[in-house]
Amino acid sequence: MTNEGDTDQPGTQPGTPSEGTGRIVLGRNRYGKAEVRLVRITRDTARHNIEDLNVTSQLHGDFERAHTEGDNSHVVATDTQKNTIYAFARDGIGTPEAFLMRLGEHFTSSFNWVTGGRWTAEQYFWERIHDHDHSFSRNKSETRTAVLVVEGGRKALVAGISGLTVLKSTGSEFHGFPRDRYTTLPETTDRILATDVTARWRYTTLEVDFNALYSGVRGILLDAFASTHSLALQQTMFTMGKQVLEAHPEIGEIRMSLPNNHHFLVDLSPFGLDNPNEVFFAADRPYGLIEATVQREGGTGEPEVWASIPGFC
Amino acid sequence: MTNEGDTDQPGTQPGTPSEGTGRIVLGRNRYGKAEVRLVRITRDTARHNIEDLNVTSQLHGDFERAHTEGDNSHVVATDTQKNTIYAFARDGIGTPEAFLMRLGEHFTSSFNWVTGGRWTAEQYFWERIHDHDHSFSRNKSETRTAVLVVEGGRKALVAGISGLTVLKSTGSEFHGFPRDRYTTLPETTDRILATDVTARWRYTTLEVDFNALYSGVRGILLDAFASTHSLALQQTMFTMGKQVLEAHPEIGEIRMSLPNNHHFLVDLSPFGLDNPNEVFFAADRPYGLIEATVQREGGTGEPEVWASIPGFC
Amino acid sequence: MTNEGDTDQPGTQPGTPSEGTGRIVLGRNRYGKAEVRLVRITRDTARHNIEDLNVTSQLHGDFERAHTEGDNSHVVATDTQKNTIYAFARDGIGTPEAFLMRLGEHFTSSFNWVTGGRWTAEQYFWERIHDHDHSFSRNKSETRTAVLVVEGGRKALVAGISGLTVLKSTGSEFHGFPRDRYTTLPETTDRILATDVTARWRYTTLEVDFNALYSGVRGILLDAFASTHSLALQQTMFTMGKQVLEAHPEIGEIRMSLPNNHHFLVDLSPFGLDNPNEVFFAADRPYGLIEATVQREGGTGEPEVWASIPGFC
Amino acid sequence: MTNEGDTDQPGTQPGTPSEGTGRIVLGRNRYGKAEVRLVRITRDTARHNIEDLNVTSQLHGDFERAHTEGDNSHVVATDTQKNTIYAFARDGIGTPEAFLMRLGEHFTSSFNWVTGGRWTAEQYFWERIHDHDHSFSRNKSETRTAVLVVEGGRKALVAGISGLTVLKSTGSEFHGFPRDRYTTLPETTDRILATDVTARWRYTTLEVDFNALYSGVRGILLDAFASTHSLALQQTMFTMGKQVLEAHPEIGEIRMSLPNNHHFLVDLSPFGLDNPNEVFFAADRPYGLIEATVQREGGTGEPEVWASIPGFC
Repeated sequence: MTNEGDTDQPGTQPGTPSEGTGRIVLGRNRYGKAEVRLVRITRDTARHNIEDLNVTSQLHGDFERAHTEGDNSHVVATDTQKNTIYAFARDGIGTPEAFLMRLGEHFTSSFNWVTGGRWTAEQYFWERIHDHDHSFSRNKSETRTAVLVVEGGRKALVAGISGLTVLKSTGSEFHGFPRDRYTTLPETTDRILATDVTARWRYTTLEVDFNALYSGVRGILLDAFASTHSLALQQTMFTMGKQVLEAHPEIGEIRMSLPNNHHFLVDLSPFGLDNPNEVFFAADRPYGLIEATVQREGGTGEPEVWASIPGFC
Repeated sequence: MTNEGDTDQPGTQPGTPSEGTGRIVLGRNRYGKAEVRLVRITRDTARHNIEDLNVTSQLHGDFERAHTEGDNSHVVATDTQKNTIYAFARDGIGTPEAFLMRLGEHFTSSFNWVTGGRWTAEQYFWERIHDHDHSFSRNKSETRTAVLVVEGGRKALVAGISGLTVLKSTGSEFHGFPRDRYTTLPETTDRILATDVTARWRYTTLEVDFNALYSGVRGILLDAFASTHSLALQQTMFTMGKQVLEAHPEIGEIRMSLPNNHHFLVDLSPFGLDNPNEVFFAADRPYGLIEATVQREGGTGEPEVWASIPGFC
Repeated sequence: MTNEGDTDQPGTQPGTPSEGTGRIVLGRNRYGKAEVRLVRITRDTARHNIEDLNVTSQLHGDFERAHTEGDNSHVVATDTQKNTIYAFARDGIGTPEAFLMRLGEHFTSSFNWVTGGRWTAEQYFWERIHDHDHSFSRNKSETRTAVLVVEGGRKALVAGISGLTVLKSTGSEFHGFPRDRYTTLPETTDRILATDVTARWRYTTLEVDFNALYSGVRGILLDAFASTHSLALQQTMFTMGKQVLEAHPEIGEIRMSLPNNHHFLVDLSPFGLDNPNEVFFAADRPYGLIEATVQREGGTGEPEVWASIPGFC
Repeated sequence: MTNEGDTDQPGTQPGTPSEGTGRIVLGRNRYGKAEVRLVRITRDTARHNIEDLNVTSQLHGDFERAHTEGDNSHVVATDTQKNTIYAFARDGIGTPEAFLMRLGEHFTSSFNWVTGGRWTAEQYFWERIHDHDHSFSRNKSETRTAVLVVEGGRKALVAGISGLTVLKSTGSEFHGFPRDRYTTLPETTDRILATDVTARWRYTTLEVDFNALYSGVRGILLDAFASTHSLALQQTMFTMGKQVLEAHPEIGEIRMSLPNNHHFLVDLSPFGLDNPNEVFFAADRPYGLIEATVQREGGTGEPEVWASIPGFC
């Protein structure tokens, strides 16, 4: 049997450690081809469509002998994984989620030692230039993301958005926080609130209209950010997630990672000027970082897929 | 009781999902100040020393009312966390690991609703210019990393190295892999093998000489990469990890994420030239990505800390 | 007398070198504060406006003794330059061009040894979220730029756009190029044409509506890219510039730097598939790089400002 | 005759503008292939050597009809330029400067409408791992650069270094600067001085040992930075350049662009702590930016090559 180390997995309960002292073995592993840049033009008519993705494919399974002996008889080459991505694109993309599921089904059914894997996509958006049939400009305001983890026939699918930068020029307060000997921050009832929204949500069913869901979630996130009078970025974030779950029963949970992009009011008094919340310094680092899951009571997730996604607790 | 959603955690067994249908609640969460850039000069004598870190502090605990009601009475301001980092640096850094533990102990003991947290550091290296007392140049060849997760009094500590770029100009083969209809890669008995080493290792005891351990692991990783005749990057990676564990019993497991930085032999035959493994195109994307844990048989880890680290399976 | 080396300037004719052999002197120089991140909220009414800039200020003048003797009596501190930027923003921004001119006039009139300088701005765009009064999302599709060089009372002003990514999925050919022993590229009558538009145009008068001009030029660049059936990226570029100059007599010349972002048709024939210009690999490096000035016959420019702008011939 | 706009060149005297009103024409232009990533292994013996470059080739000449009519009969394809780079590497690199000169001679002699061009290289450094014959780790502390501009048989060659990050923890003062109503910066007699050295120097002869010169200049820059007691970054910079010119008569001038990487002393007094220049915040933006040329009295340069290099006055 391979992967003796599999007892060391997220399912292990913290608090009951038993550090092994025996021989050294291979634990969990995955491998594949990362960042396959795929542009697919649909040109059935004179009015073209463009799909622009960055796809990663990684396999789970019995690859122990490659590690321990350099025996590659189970190693589906990462070059082969790349070729497969391009070949599958010949039949169209459709949605990132559907494309990843096609890949996952192919690899897990084609090689009996491949028990699962992880497939991810970023999608970049393009808009027509003045409604032109085949000329486009890229809308860089956000990236759409998808992560599929398959293991033992089980699929966990997480969609997402990243890099959506938003700002409120008022309607944000921050006060009532505890003060200790290291606290110097003044309370405020009017500050700029700005963040780059990275959100990931897990589908509890795979029978949804992924493009419609993406648009729906995106709209709710923006609306909730805009309309919430904020007492803390935590509160704004929770409201954003709550409204997404209320509107979309096919989503089990949503996780967000929001930097607090600080805009510091510049002290103009040395120059004989007031500054009634008009002139700000936009700082780079450090920044606040607020992360949380919003979920349904009693709900449980798919810890493997979440553990594979950076930046979420 | 807060955080009713806590049943949705990495400890939940996959395979037994029970999607909640009840009310929407806050799940796991953390917040803090990220990327606090800290430079500490030790100048007790004319011969100065420099420590250069990028520190992040994030807290776990009862922050539910901040999320659901905008009540900040439990929210230790991220600005306070930043101030604390600078204040603690007044007493010196020592090692990134020891500095993070001081921070963790402070926050978990100072606020009774703070049950734990996550503290991370990157350390950048400087070398003396021609042995000068107070002039330095930065050695950018790698970054040292540390991650501490504390929860309920339990500490999990993971040290690491990132961005260490290495290359073998021969002594690397790749053949014997399976061929399917999507396989076009030729077999090779002589290729360039190049990667950027990112490795993380977990200490099973906190009573070690962290600086000595870092140097030791770094040296082994380099040696093992250099001296292994490679039949697969997987094999090289496993050997690197195995030699680290053999040398250092205080390390429970090591995880590596290694891109295969492809160097493609350029076909010069159209120009009437041969190319006996001398002229290569160094490609950007896509790249192979090989990831694994090397551990001790029967060993168990600290899944929470690993789940919080990007890029590891 | 200062700056004895000033004979070594762009005005020197190439072809008549006379390498000095005398003592070592300070040549051309400038200094200042770079990348001052300035966010200005206009909140005269409940409907706020946001201006988001990255401003750099650099001074020319008699700074020789700072260099040769460490005498700072002429060195207007870069911190002072930063403060001035924020103080001036208290009165509003208006346009990047007008703001830079206010800065230039201030510094050259306030310090009699400051003979000129270089002031630049990048402007980032924000859009209202669903027409909200004070909530915005950032439109990252492009950056607006401005460069002002003042010397001896003379102003040279160059506006620009950068990072505008465009693509045509057909309507682009490339053939008829010369073939030598190193040529392997096949001719094509149908390829993807993609680039990131960086354009800079010089105003011959400062009495224009800078915002309207920016919108006008942007629209022409997009239209010309979209509507030109391309036989070479050079041809597309020249057409873009020509249409800008035809429409806007207040522009003396326009310079463009256009990468040819290669999209390679993937060979799917090993997998038994055709690929009628549908599946492409979007490459990172190398890329074509096409640069030119489009100008009015007999026209002359402001070589100093152009020499200070990276990436233009 | 082509390129009617050629009167608009850096040689034009500022102060005598004559904006053309005539027809719209092509001005100065260049095109080529950028960022060709070339790794060359020399393996004549078991002890290999590695050369790692990023090469750009751009041509000047009569390309007017490509721009105005889409006639590519003069357009040496950028793909052909890339192929030529790889083919020439078959015979070895030697030094970046020598390699660029070989490229320049080839292109200007092979196509009679190619009158010149611009060729640049970045070189990345590798070190042996523990003196191993064919295993290397990359030294990322700096990048070596070279720029060659050829026009009408005339060659201008500029070598350089970039990204060399240095810091002095004492031995740096800044005071005596003028104070106006916008000045708030306190004077200091002890601050951290830190910068990233970018320097470019022009050779007045091409008959030099380029590798030895590079090492020599690098050593002097480091030494001068370390040993100069600094009253201003301008003074340190001038001293660095002066010592280079004094040591190397084959260098006509040197230009430097030095950010002042601010390290702000953290005010720990709110926490009851002193801070005797020990704990600093390393800021990202804004930063000072100090640029100058150091040259020989009466010396004249090659304005075309300098105008093509970003970031230098």
